[in-house]
Amino acid sequence: MAAYASSLVFDDIPPDVVEKAKLCLMDTLGCCIFGSTLPFVKVLTNMVLAEGGSDAAAILGTSHRTSASQAALVNGTAAHAFQLDEVHAGATLHPGSVVVPAVLALAHGARLSGRAFLTAMVAGYEVGIRIGLATDGGMFRRGYHNQGTTGALAAAAAAARALGLGPGATAQAFGIAASQSAGLMAVQEGANAKAFHSGRAAQSGVYAALLAGEGFTGVDDVLDVEYGGFFSTLADGYKPERLTRDLGHEWETRKVGYKLSPASNGSITAMDTLRRIMDSNGVKTGDIEHVTAHVSTNTLHHCGWDFDPRAAKGVLAAQMNLRYGLAAMALDGCATPAQYTEARIKDPKIAEFLAKINVRVCDEFDRDGALRLASRIEVRSRGGATYVDQTLYRKGSVEDPVSTAQLEDKFLALTHAVLSRSAASMGIEQIRTWDALPRVPGSGSIWGRQR
Amino acid sequence: MAAYASSLVFDDIPPDVVEKAKLCLMDTLGCCIFGSTLPFVKVLTNMVLAEGGSDAAAILGTSHRTSASQAALVNGTAAHAFQLDEVHAGATLHPGSVVVPAVLALAHGARLSGRAFLTAMVAGYEVGIRIGLATDGGMFRRGYHNQGTTGALAAAAAAARALGLGPGATAQAFGIAASQSAGLMAVQEGANAKAFHSGRAAQSGVYAALLAGEGFTGVDDVLDVEYGGFFSTLADGYKPERLTRDLGHEWETRKVGYKLSPASNGSITAMDTLRRIMDSNGVKTGDIEHVTAHVSTNTLHHCGWDFDPRAAKGVLAAQMNLRYGLAAMALDGCATPAQYTEARIKDPKIAEFLAKINVRVCDEFDRDGALRLASRIEVRSRGGATYVDQTLYRKGSVEDPVSTAQLEDKFLALTHAVLSRSAASMGIEQIRTWDALPRVPGSGSIWGRQR
Repeated sequence: MAAYASSLVFDDIPPDVVEKAKLCLMDTLGCCIFGSTLPFVKVLTNMVLAEGGSDAAAILGTSHRTSASQAALVNGTAAHAFQLDEVHAGATLHPGSVVVPAVLALAHGARLSGRAFLTAMVAGYEVGIRIGLATDGGMFRRGYHNQGTTGALAAAAAAARALGLGPGATAQAFGIAASQSAGLMAVQEGANAKAFHSGRAAQSGVYAALLAGEGFTGVDDVLDVEYGGFFSTLADGYKPERLTRDLGHEWETRKVGYKLSPASNGSITAMDTLRRIMDSNGVKTGDIEHVTAHVSTNTLHHCGWDFDPRAAKGVLAAQMNLRYGLAAMALDGCATPAQYTEARIKDPKIAEFLAKINVRVCDEFDRDGALRLASRIEVRSRGGATYVDQTLYRKGSVEDPVSTAQLEDKFLALTHAVLSRSAASMGIEQIRTWDALPRVPGSGSIWGRQR
Repeated sequence: MAAYASSLVFDDIPPDVVEKAKLCLMDTLGCCIFGSTLPFVKVLTNMVLAEGGSDAAAILGTSHRTSASQAALVNGTAAHAFQLDEVHAGATLHPGSVVVPAVLALAHGARLSGRAFLTAMVAGYEVGIRIGLATDGGMFRRGYHNQGTTGALAAAAAAARALGLGPGATAQAFGIAASQSAGLMAVQEGANAKAFHSGRAAQSGVYAALLAGEGFTGVDDVLDVEYGGFFSTLADGYKPERLTRDLGHEWETRKVGYKLSPASNGSITAMDTLRRIMDSNGVKTGDIEHVTAHVSTNTLHHCGWDFDPRAAKGVLAAQMNLRYGLAAMALDGCATPAQYTEARIKDPKIAEFLAKINVRVCDEFDRDGALRLASRIEVRSRGGATYVDQTLYRKGSVEDPVSTAQLEDKFLALTHAVLSRSAASMGIEQIRTWDALPRVPGSGSIWGRQR
């Protein structure tokens, strides 16, 4: 893996993968900029600013610059802060929120061209996603959040490529990053620390590459070692053969999906289905007597738990929860950031609607692993009618993709509070031609804070 | 645990525990200062200096100051860098190298008195050691290095107390720290990343307390939560009842032992025994035909592996290895930093002596868990004589303690390359009266670099 990451060059990357990487870059930058406006990301930003530091890299969405490791920490956290960052479903990894902040942090110091930037990004995506695929759910089962564990290695691969490290130093960077691989899934019910996993992983990758480049050693075979290694310690079962199968031929970067709603993937298919039923059949919120969501066991555990709006677990808990998502969709007809605020969660109408929701396991979705995010929704109306519909693949997934225009609209919406319309449009244009840039504008606050 | 850490006050701490904490402080500062002279710690220091930052805290052993989180990162790494830092054998935790750097990082900003400093230290020691005891070897079995996992929580407890956080925020700090708990045991065969575990843990604790103090959330019951929690995810078996048993009455800080030799604990008993046999019986190195070390299974796995001086695994591998330690002791009659250099390891006489060493499991030491560091040494001389002796408890352990004078000599030896004799003596005097300081001198480079 280290040899692959360190030897990848731009001309190896198929043109469609380059275009995909640019879309991933745009999506991640949008998430970073939106994330920077959230109160808990501001707490982190203030802590980092109090620490002081060089002006190596921009804190996106602000006019501040700070050191490489601290910019990676904040931007990584911001990117994952509102559950809108792109995701590789098979690897259960959001590569953008760990890889992009790491490369961006080093771009100015390493004087990266647009092509070198995209090459480092793809190295991080391919390595990180393949490590995620090799864990085969085994980290999730043990209680780990891939974002903080696999994420550190993805960031290290990208950072090592950005610095131009050779295969030996890249292997040491993997070892140093694995020594920092951390992140407990208990955060999923509402901790700010969930997004911090991405930030800390991006920072771990930056540290790892900077140190390995100067001869600091980690473990040079950290993925394979039998005692105290990355897979052997962190994963409950793993498939190392997935690491190198078709490496350099089959590009996992192609299979990254995008999110249009700030909710967990398992919730989105259910919410979209409910909306379709209501729209197609003219069902009003008040008509609904009962909703049953049929989902996979995985989705039930991940998102189907009872949601108590009074428990003050915060916005993240609502974002992760299928029941809340259905209630918000039934009442508001959409799932935008406005549905995920403390005030909206506390509305008594939400609590009232939550009482009408059941979640059940659907064997069919369990049998076909590819359907683990699928949802079938059954709505019973007061008039006695029953409506059933289902969504097998999430909107934005590889199976049901969104268009470039939709992603650009998402970028404009996410950056609206920070950037003027013309600056945001200029940003989109710059990303479209990123591979032509002689130097990445990573050192300035990208397109500057304007509102 | 959070309630305990946040409510501990100086007057609660028995006088002998205060005295013990001062010795631990002296020992840790000595290790930090010596560690700062090692090449790989200098690599880390240079990386941190390139990052820039405020002058909140000293990088010990240098004339540099940097931000709180970065000072914790470097000082924590330096403290654990040469395997000389104090250790609680039951918890397999070196509390000093994570706790002291975290408190030192915040001391200036929080305007800590000597008493407040020692109180924060003891809060970190008691919490960290008890978490280590509760894991009951379960993290080691899974492949984790307690220093990076339990260490992050110990540092968080100390940092939260230093900042005066309440019980709620302290619990959140534990959650944020647990999200960063990391460190793989594969580093034990020679990676610089091993010491980095202490540095990253100290930094994690500082981050956790700074963020929790401003309302950033972790998981408020991270030790207990069944899925994705600290124990449930990281430990292969654990005893949560050990956390609170006799908390506030029985002071685990008392049971911290000190190290006089820069080698793994399991090696030290064997090396001391070999030396005693040679001294008592007038056995010269050239007389020795064969050495057999009888040790526990734990020591065999941890330190008894075959050592190849040509494998270029570096100094740390030699420090961790029982066979190397015996060879060095047989040839040099002592185990000081001079025995642990690249040049000494490559001496052909070392390779020659290694061929004379066997390591075997001793059932007796396995049966009594308290004897897992014990060693029985059997020396067969060329003349046909056989000598047997054993050491049940490591010199410096609670069972066979070293004197304050010996610890002061260790401090003088460790700081010799950096401090003048008079500055080092002044340092010892200041630590003796640390509880009388109205303000801890944490902001200046303690006693300044002078050589």
